[in-house]
Formats: sequence, structure tokens, C-alpha cells
Amino acid sequence: MALTIAVAGATGYAGGEILRLLLGHPKYASGEIEIGALTGNSNAGQSVAALMPHLPALADRVIRETRPDILAGHDVVFLGLPHGYSAEIVRALPDSTLVIDCAADFRLRDAEDWRRYYGQDHAGSWPYGIPEMPGHREQIAASRRVAIPGCFPTGATLAALPAVSAGLVTPDLSVVSVTGVSGAGKKANVSLLGAETMGSIKAYNTAGRHRHNPEIVQNLREATDTPVSVSFTPVLAPLSRGILTTITAPLTPGVTTETAHEAYASYYADEPFVWVMPGGLQPQTQNVVGTNMCHVQVEADELAGKLLATAVIDNLTKGTAGAAVQCMNIALGWEETSGLPTAGVAP
Amino acid sequence: MALTIAVAGATGYAGGEILRLLLGHPKYASGEIEIGALTGNSNAGQSVAALMPHLPALADRVIRETRPDILAGHDVVFLGLPHGYSAEIVRALPDSTLVIDCAADFRLRDAEDWRRYYGQDHAGSWPYGIPEMPGHREQIAASRRVAIPGCFPTGATLAALPAVSAGLVTPDLSVVSVTGVSGAGKKANVSLLGAETMGSIKAYNTAGRHRHNPEIVQNLREATDTPVSVSFTPVLAPLSRGILTTITAPLTPGVTTETAHEAYASYYADEPFVWVMPGGLQPQTQNVVGTNMCHVQVEADELAGKLLATAVIDNLTKGTAGAAVQCMNIALGWEETSGLPTAGVAP
Amino acid sequence: MALTIAVAGATGYAGGEILRLLLGHPKYASGEIEIGALTGNSNAGQSVAALMPHLPALADRVIRETRPDILAGHDVVFLGLPHGYSAEIVRALPDSTLVIDCAADFRLRDAEDWRRYYGQDHAGSWPYGIPEMPGHREQIAASRRVAIPGCFPTGATLAALPAVSAGLVTPDLSVVSVTGVSGAGKKANVSLLGAETMGSIKAYNTAGRHRHNPEIVQNLREATDTPVSVSFTPVLAPLSRGILTTITAPLTPGVTTETAHEAYASYYADEPFVWVMPGGLQPQTQNVVGTNMCHVQVEADELAGKLLATAVIDNLTKGTAGAAVQCMNIALGWEETSGLPTAGVAP
Amino acid sequence: MALTIAVAGATGYAGGEILRLLLGHPKYASGEIEIGALTGNSNAGQSVAALMPHLPALADRVIRETRPDILAGHDVVFLGLPHGYSAEIVRALPDSTLVIDCAADFRLRDAEDWRRYYGQDHAGSWPYGIPEMPGHREQIAASRRVAIPGCFPTGATLAALPAVSAGLVTPDLSVVSVTGVSGAGKKANVSLLGAETMGSIKAYNTAGRHRHNPEIVQNLREATDTPVSVSFTPVLAPLSRGILTTITAPLTPGVTTETAHEAYASYYADEPFVWVMPGGLQPQTQNVVGTNMCHVQVEADELAGKLLATAVIDNLTKGTAGAAVQCMNIALGWEETSGLPTAGVAP
Repeated sequence: MALTIAVAGATGYAGGEILRLLLGHPKYASGEIEIGALTGNSNAGQSVAALMPHLPALADRVIRETRPDILAGHDVVFLGLPHGYSAEIVRALPDSTLVIDCAADFRLRDAEDWRRYYGQDHAGSWPYGIPEMPGHREQIAASRRVAIPGCFPTGATLAALPAVSAGLVTPDLSVVSVTGVSGAGKKANVSLLGAETMGSIKAYNTAGRHRHNPEIVQNLREATDTPVSVSFTPVLAPLSRGILTTITAPLTPGVTTETAHEAYASYYADEPFVWVMPGGLQPQTQNVVGTNMCHVQVEADELAGKLLATAVIDNLTKGTAGAAVQCMNIALGWEETSGLPTAGVAP
Repeated sequence: MALTIAVAGATGYAGGEILRLLLGHPKYASGEIEIGALTGNSNAGQSVAALMPHLPALADRVIRETRPDILAGHDVVFLGLPHGYSAEIVRALPDSTLVIDCAADFRLRDAEDWRRYYGQDHAGSWPYGIPEMPGHREQIAASRRVAIPGCFPTGATLAALPAVSAGLVTPDLSVVSVTGVSGAGKKANVSLLGAETMGSIKAYNTAGRHRHNPEIVQNLREATDTPVSVSFTPVLAPLSRGILTTITAPLTPGVTTETAHEAYASYYADEPFVWVMPGGLQPQTQNVVGTNMCHVQVEADELAGKLLATAVIDNLTKGTAGAAVQCMNIALGWEETSGLPTAGVAP
Repeated sequence: MALTIAVAGATGYAGGEILRLLLGHPKYASGEIEIGALTGNSNAGQSVAALMPHLPALADRVIRETRPDILAGHDVVFLGLPHGYSAEIVRALPDSTLVIDCAADFRLRDAEDWRRYYGQDHAGSWPYGIPEMPGHREQIAASRRVAIPGCFPTGATLAALPAVSAGLVTPDLSVVSVTGVSGAGKKANVSLLGAETMGSIKAYNTAGRHRHNPEIVQNLREATDTPVSVSFTPVLAPLSRGILTTITAPLTPGVTTETAHEAYASYYADEPFVWVMPGGLQPQTQNVVGTNMCHVQVEADELAGKLLATAVIDNLTKGTAGAAVQCMNIALGWEETSGLPTAGVAP
Repeated sequence: MALTIAVAGATGYAGGEILRLLLGHPKYASGEIEIGALTGNSNAGQSVAALMPHLPALADRVIRETRPDILAGHDVVFLGLPHGYSAEIVRALPDSTLVIDCAADFRLRDAEDWRRYYGQDHAGSWPYGIPEMPGHREQIAASRRVAIPGCFPTGATLAALPAVSAGLVTPDLSVVSVTGVSGAGKKANVSLLGAETMGSIKAYNTAGRHRHNPEIVQNLREATDTPVSVSFTPVLAPLSRGILTTITAPLTPGVTTETAHEAYASYYADEPFVWVMPGGLQPQTQNVVGTNMCHVQVEADELAGKLLATAVIDNLTKGTAGAAVQCMNIALGWEETSGLPTAGVAP
């Protein structure tokens, strides 16, 4: 019998991307998975044709309300809700349901961090969905609950992890992440209008104010005993999908571009979704559009005494929905790479 | 034994997109197809990693020269060469090789048209790769040679065919097609620089000068005995992928939006890659990015006495590489929809 | 004593552009004009620095409420309000105040058209601000009230006028106008988000539904006794500023590209803001960004039996705020071209 | 008698922008300056209408060859040539000619730096055209030769100068500058095609390889006795004009956002082209498009121990042509702000 999958918050960008990936999943083609309830709130009662015309295969489906009784009875539930709504929904679902949460609710382990950045009570933490972090793949495989990371922390963590872990740098990082506008979600907001974002670039939520800042720190602390410091500057650029992360950090004496590159290549040697590019090539976001890939490069700037690591991901795929499907595959014991494109929709 | 596929002109946009689709084809995953020689000319000797970093699965491959002896021995050969080079290559390949040509060389049946628009001797014509045109699917299935249409003719033909065929209009069409810049190919040209194309729109090759004009006329002539006239205005807009075709033509008295919509819906009822959208929705290019879909809408403007048909495609997928894979599937007797996404990479 | 100018609806795109132009007006530099009250509604009380950071010269100004008593006492009042609000404001201003309305309220002369398209009672009509239309410059000079045209009608009228007026075509026009997103204004709306508009093109308000349709017809009727028909298809493209208008219409027998071009060149010979480009060049929107120019081209497609006229304007400048300043100059008896750039901010 | 101005390399982006500014200069309107020879090389013999259609006022001008005899006899010569060509041209011009060089040739004072980064013999150095740097305005006023800075150094220097100069940071800077594509110039290059740059972001010339790196260091060394280190990462983003510079550096203990902001505001209090934005507002590139402005913000990230300074400029205006006109104004003893817009072409 087919396994059924519901998507709550289906009409948002994360929800739409999860559906795009599920429709291309080999187990959908073979009938082993079925797409069940699709829910939204303000959109309940409208058709997928009107709300998500990029999914003609589901055109006749009608969006339902996000209610526990509608989500119950599915084998897998993806949550693409605004922050703060997941806990209540999850409480009403059986432990045996695989719940994959794309919101921030269960990402942070430190209740104080959560309160400071989200202003609410801490709901707890779940296995954290970057399978490429040591030990995480195993935790995900053993759990029915997965917290999908923020898009910025995914890029920054994958870019920095080998350097921090191997001591190529002092973990005092300057992270500048240039993102496309889909990362801000599908909500009416003057500052996100096409006219405000095309042909323009700006930094925002600077100087420690962005909610992804403590998440990056939390991840890197797993890789080192040295105190970690992260200056994080998100930058909004005029493209829809994609994040370029640039990380500079004080270079450990003796580290060269060659030794750094070897460390990165070796760190990710068995990872299907991280490509350490050959030396001399810089990652470019269009090459990962629509894929679950992270392309990475690393160099030593010996004159400035800095290591520079750069990484690109598609914020909606590896940065959200792709990671969610990857974690679903792991948690269900399926081939981890199933249904996850690696060839980018470029140019 | 696996069937082998070569791509000539692999490093251009059409070639890269064919490879993206092949890598996602279920018969690639199952080992039934293998990707063989990848050729280019100026790029021969360089790696896929450097030239097409959106294809990390092929990163270590090296581009070879486009020579008949290198292409020979493959079961399928895709040609993504500049116009005028295909004939010579094909002459050297056995009749049993399935050759799918993305250039214009074998599209036009009228030698005079060919000479006027391309300035060369006419090499002949092959079955023409719009399977949605009556009789074409059968011709493609029966042939080892297929000419893939131009991107503009694909959009214009699919938008106009039901109207012309059912006599909803006098076939005196004004076609304005707004295209992304990837349609112009991957060649160094000042007028195609980012700085010249971002934030700007212009018409080009207007007033009958565009080479796709006679191709549109040829296609519509198959659908009517009434003389066909096509005014074609291509417009370049600042996006990478996508064509929006708008067609206005004199409305046949008595035709309403409802009857026109029914005619379109009925015409394409069995087509997997054409979606006649529900009334009230207009096609938007982002919804077909990366897919082999054409989304269509039709309306009667009774006050102006015009029918308006609109259609969107991804110029590199349904407009080129997707059609090529669709025709390969048909010619090989495979499931026509195999390996061809229908869910768009939106937003 | 300096003449004072108020801008109501100053924080919208039209208002901001009027202020940009006034700040660059030679009479501002010389102290002959002063910028008085700037009003908005939801934004009242906030600073220009926060709302319009492109105007640092006015950074410390505070936005006030849009109330007649605040606008009264100025010599010139620009109105950049949503449609339907101008009439009430104007009633409270003295006849001697020069009022230049950028909304639609006083554009249409036909009360029935107004009701059908705007669903409200007709407030009347004012001299219509395309000085390039025969007789209009004189009407504007003689009035204290000017209705600034819609952006689409400006482009379409300037593109079609010589052809319709000289009988180069049967006035049965297919108008396709590709516009940047700033034309939709600065209001929160999911369909206008950067993520929905970047990398995408779509038609909207098609088949006679766009409010600018009757305005185009009204303008062209002034130029011919033959019945005028206009099929109008607006298309939204991913750029901020600019409209490319393409017009096709049945070519009068005997008209050639040469004779058409001469007719256009002669028609606009004395117009400072219309450039009929040399033959062979197509207008491109980036070349008019920030200017009050309209670049025009015309060709005969003899095979298709159509005339093709193309025109570009900046929708916020010649399409709105530039026309408003041009009309102010005329109405005040100043040099018509004062403060109006002709050199585009390209690339 | 009018002063005559020639522009060598007029058809490049810098040349075109210089012409746009000159056409709007009050002394052009008053007849006190005249635009003389416009030269280019590959374009010699073509019209401005064809090459720079954004300048209809000069449409009939013909581009001439870049030869000393053609440039001689002008009072002012702007050079917008590729690097390495200026020295020879200048040798043939009289000392009394005001020569303003937009290339790199005379920017660096260290011959070794020049050789390492440009691979040629050092031609010397001229007064360096950032009038906002202490002492520079006076040097420019006293000279007939000015070297206009690179666009990245302008943004980085203006962003960092108050911090370095006042000791708010240890001058060990991580500079990430996100630029539009016009910065790369108007040359045919596959990697700069619209299809390669739209919808994509990438870093390039990383880890000390960019030629603007030593120029930033040279500028900051003027402001401090402490050794200066600059890690510089240029990032290419999909917009035409604009650079956002982000700078992070170790925060001097005790410095807060408030004290840093005061230091910046006080440093630039008398500068007409630098706007230190009110606290809480981040600079956005669209607000400086077409202007000679630099908008700046500064914050202390006390948790990370870093100062963050951000700045935006239009790379073609304040980053090149605007600075050139500003320096011309200074060198000729004119009002420094003449002809230089401060109101941005936004949105």
C-alpha cells in the first residue's frame, strides 16, 4: 500500500518546492508514495491551479485548512508553516508519523537563544537536518522528527565545517551571505516588491540581528572546542533562488590553498550533495538552481592572512525542501539521493 | 546492453539542457542509457567542470572535437550545432542512428524560404518535432531523423493551432513573443551582455526578418486551407529562460471566450505537455521553467474583434532540449513523457 | 518670491519621481521654486529618509496627511493619489492653483467609459497631458488643471499617432505593451513580489479589461475619422522601469518602410521629447530610463501586410512624472524642456 | 569662449556616463562648455545614435579614432581607455590640458604593486580622485592631472575611512563588495552574457587577486599608522549598476553603534556626496543609481566583536564618471556639486 504524504503550508515557497520534488520522486512514479492533504490557511478552498500553477499535475487539488485532523492519518507530514505553529500541530500527531518541520521551531537547542531571537517559549529541539554534519545522518535515520535548518545556516555550515573542524582557521568568522528574494517567503510586503528588489542590493538584519545567526554558531560549535564567533551579514540581491555564502576567517599559519582544498575534498569525499569544485573555479548560484547540491570552494589569502570559503545552494532546495526530502529518504531507509536533482537548471 | 547517446555541441545551452534531462531520465538511473561522446569545437579538451558546472555528475568528462568519427558508433546523436553544420555530420552517420537535430537545417520544407532566411543551399527536410501537431507524432515514431523546431515556432504554433484549425479566427496573425536571453545562445556578443539586457526590453529582427517567421507560417498552413499571414515581432526581455507568446487575430463572428476555451481544451485533451489553463488564469513563464510544458490561455476580445491566445514555454526545454528528448522517447518507442519534468522550478 | 509646490501622494512611485525631477529643475537650484508640503496617508509622520532614501536632499522632511488645508496655499499641487480621490481634493483648492493630476480621474471624456472601467461616478475631464497631440499643448498652456495620461496610453499614442493620422494603416490596432513592475505602484501584493516577477513574464488584464484601453482609443479617435479599434495586451516583465509598446495594424497599400519613416520623422520633427530613431535601430527601454524621452521606430512588413511601430518610454518619467513636470512647465509659461533629462541612465 | 571637452573611449560605459553627466551640467546648458571630440577605436566611424542611443542629443555625432592629434586642442580630456593606454596619450597632450583618467594607470604609487597586478611598467601616479580623503581635494584643485579611483576602492574607502581613521577598529578588514555587471565594461565575454549573469551570483578574482585590492590598502594606509590588512572578495550580482560594500573588522573595545555612528556622521558632516544614513536604515543600491552619492551605515556587533560598515554607490557615477566630473569641477574651480545628481533613479 502506498505511503501517504501531507504538506501543511503547501502554498508557500517551501511547500511548493516539496511538492515539485515529490512529483519527480521515483517512488511517486512507481505509486509507492501518494500525495495526500495539502493545507494552507488564507488560501483554503482555492485550487492548486490558481495558487501554484507550476504544478499542473495537481491542478485540480483544493487547498484545505491546516488542522491536525486533516493532517492525521498520513505517514509523512511536511510542515511549511510560519515559525511558532509547528509545536501545536505536532502534539496532535502520533509518534509514528514522520514529521519534517521546515520552520525554526525545533532547530535551536538553547532555550535562551530561542527566546532572544524568536520571542516565544522554546518548544524543544529535534534532530537537525544537515546529514552532512558528523553524526546527524544517524540521528535522522533513528527519529520520526526532523528539524530542517534555515537556508543561511545550511550554506554557512557546509562552507565552514571542514575549516573549523580541521583547524584551518581560528573560528572567528565573517559570514556574508547574498540571497535571492524567495528566501523571504510569499508574503505581501512593500520592501519585497519587484520594484524594490530588482536592480538593487542591500544588507538587512545586520550586526547579529538575523535569526539564523545563533543557528550558525550552534552548528559550528559541534566541530570545535575553540570558542566560535560569527559576524553574519545577510544581503538581498535581485534573483529569485540562490545563496552565495562567503566566509573569511583568520588563517592558521602554514595552511595554503592546496592543503585547505585537500582538507575540504577529503571531508566531503563521500557526500553526494556537496561538490568541492576543482581549484580555480568559483561556485555560481545558477548551477545549483533546482538541485539539492552545494558547490564549495576554498582558498588561502596568505597576504591578508585569511581563509576564504565560498558556497552556493538553492535556498528553496538544499536550503529547505530538498533537505526535507533528503531527510525523509534517510528516515524512511530509502536511497538518500532519490528524487533529488543534482543537475542545475542553468542558465 | 545500454544504448549510447552522444551530444554534439554539448557545451551550448541546448546541449547542456539535453544533458540535464538525460541525467534525470529514468533509463539513465536504470543503466539502460549511457552518455557517450560530448563534443564542442572551441572548447575541445576542456572539462565539463569548467564549462558546465551545473552538471557535476559529468564533471570529469572532457569535451572532444565535433567529428563524425567521434560521433559514430552511438545509438542516438543529438546535434546542438550552429545552423549549417548538421548536414555534413549526418552524411557520415549510419541510417540506423537516431539523429535529433536542434539546428534549423532540416526544419523548412521550402528550399526558397531556406535560402532567403539562411543564405545557404537547402539540405532538405526531416520529420518536424512538434508531436502535438496532427500526424507528427506518427512521423517521428517512424523515422531515425527528427528536426527540432525553433523555440518561437513551438510557442506560436501551440498557441495558434486550435484557433486556426477550428476556424476561430481568420489566419492573419500578429504574433509578439517575449523571450529570455538564453534563446540567443552562448556566444560572446556585446548586445547580449548582462549590462545591455538587464533592466531593458527591445524588439529585434522585426517586420519579417526573423528566421523563425517562415517556420511559423509553415506550421499553421498544415492546419488550414485559408491563406496564412504572420506578422512576427520577437522581443528580448531580462530573464534567462522563458517565452511568452501573444497572438491576436481577427475573431470569427460568434466565437466567444467560452467556445474558444472549449475548442482549445478539447484540442489538447490528450496532450501530456500542453495545459490549457482554467479560464481567468494567464500563463506565466516561471511556472514552466525547467519543464517540457506549454501553458495556454485563450480569450475573445469581442469589442476589438480579436481572439487573444497566450502561451508560455521554457525556450531551452519544450523549446529545444525537452522537445528533443520527447522526440527521442517517441522514436525509440519509450514512454513519451519519460524524463521530462512537468513541475516548474518556480518561483 | 518663490513659487511653492506641494506633492500629494508623495511617497508613491509617481510622487517620488516628481520630487527627483523637481530637485534637478534649474528653477529649484535658482530658488525660484520651493518644495512645500509632501503628503501621504498611511505614511504620515514618517521621514523622507525612511520612506524615500533616494532623495537625501529632503531626508529630514516629514510626510504629512493628504488634506485640502495642508495642500492649500501652494501655487502648484501635484496629485499622485489612487484613482477616485482627486476630485474631492481639487474641489477645496482655488481655481488659480495649478493642479496636475497623475491619477485617472479626469482623463476620460466619456462618462460611460469611466463607469465601465472604474466603477464610479465620472468627475469630468481636464486638458489631457500629452503635449505632442495636436492642440493639446495649447490647451495645457491655457488651463490650471491637467490630467496626466496613463503610462500605457502615452507609449501607445506616441507610437501610433503619425500612422493613424497620416492614414498609413487601417486603425485596427493590436497593441502589446511590455512593462516593468514599477507601473503597478508601491503596494503590497503577492503577485508583485520580487520572487513572483523576477525571471518571469505574463500578460494580465487582457482582452479589453485594462483601464488604459479606452484611453488609447480616445486618443487615437482625435487623429482620424475612421472607426478605431484597439486590442490591448499588457505584459509584465522583470525590470523596474520602462515600457516597450509594439503596435501592428493593417498596412495601407503602397506604404513602405521609407515612406512610413518619413511620415514619423516629419510628424515629430519639432518635438523635443520624441526621437524617431534612424532606420535599422530598434528602441530599447534602458536608453530612456530616467528621461522624458520617447524613442520610436516604424517599419512596413509588406509580406504580412502590417505596419509595425515600436516605442519606449520610462513609465515613471515620460509615462507619469516627467509628463507632469513638462505640463507644469507649459502651464507656467516656462521653457518646456526645463528640468527634464533626455540622456538615459544606461546601461 | 566655451571650454571644450573631449572624451577618449567615449563608447564604453564610463565614457557614456561622462557624456550623460556633461549634457546635464549647468555649464553645458549655459554654453560655457562644449563637447568636442568623442573617440573610440573599434567603433570609429559609427554614429552615437547606433552606439549610445541613450544620448539622443548627440545622435548625429560620429566617433573618431583615439589619437593624440584628435584629442589635442581641448581644454579638458577625459580618458576612458583600457588600462595601459593612457600614458602614451597623455605624453602628447600639453601640461595645461586638464586630463582626467578613468583607467588604473596612475592610481598606484607603488611601482611593485603596479607590476604585480597589471604586469606592465609603472607610468607613475597622479593626484587620486577621492576628494573626500583628507588633503585630496586640495591636491586635485592644484593639478591638471587626476587619476579616478576604481569603483570598488571608492566604496570600500568611503565605508572604512572614518573607522580606520578614528581607530574604531583594528585595520584588519574583510571587505565583500557586491557589484552590478556594468563594472566589467562593455566587452564581449561569454561569462558576462545576460544568460550567465541574470539569476546568478558568484565571487571572482578572490583571495587577493583583484586589481583593486592594493588600491584599497593604499587608501587606508593614509588614515592610520597601524599596519593595514584587507581581505577583498568581489561578488557579481544580477543588476546593471550599483555596488554594496560590506566591511567587517575587529571592534575596538568600548566602541558602540552610537559612538561609531557619531564618528561617521561627524567625519562626513561637510561632504555633499556622502550621506551617513540615520541609525536603523541600511543603504540600498537603487537609491544611488545615476547619482554621485555614497550612502553609508555603521554598526557595532558587540557579540561578534566586529564593526560592520556598509556603503552603496553607483559604480558608473560616484564609482567612475561622477567622480571624474566632480574632480573636473574642483580642478576648474567650479562649484564641486555642479551637474552631479544626488536624487537616485529609484525604483
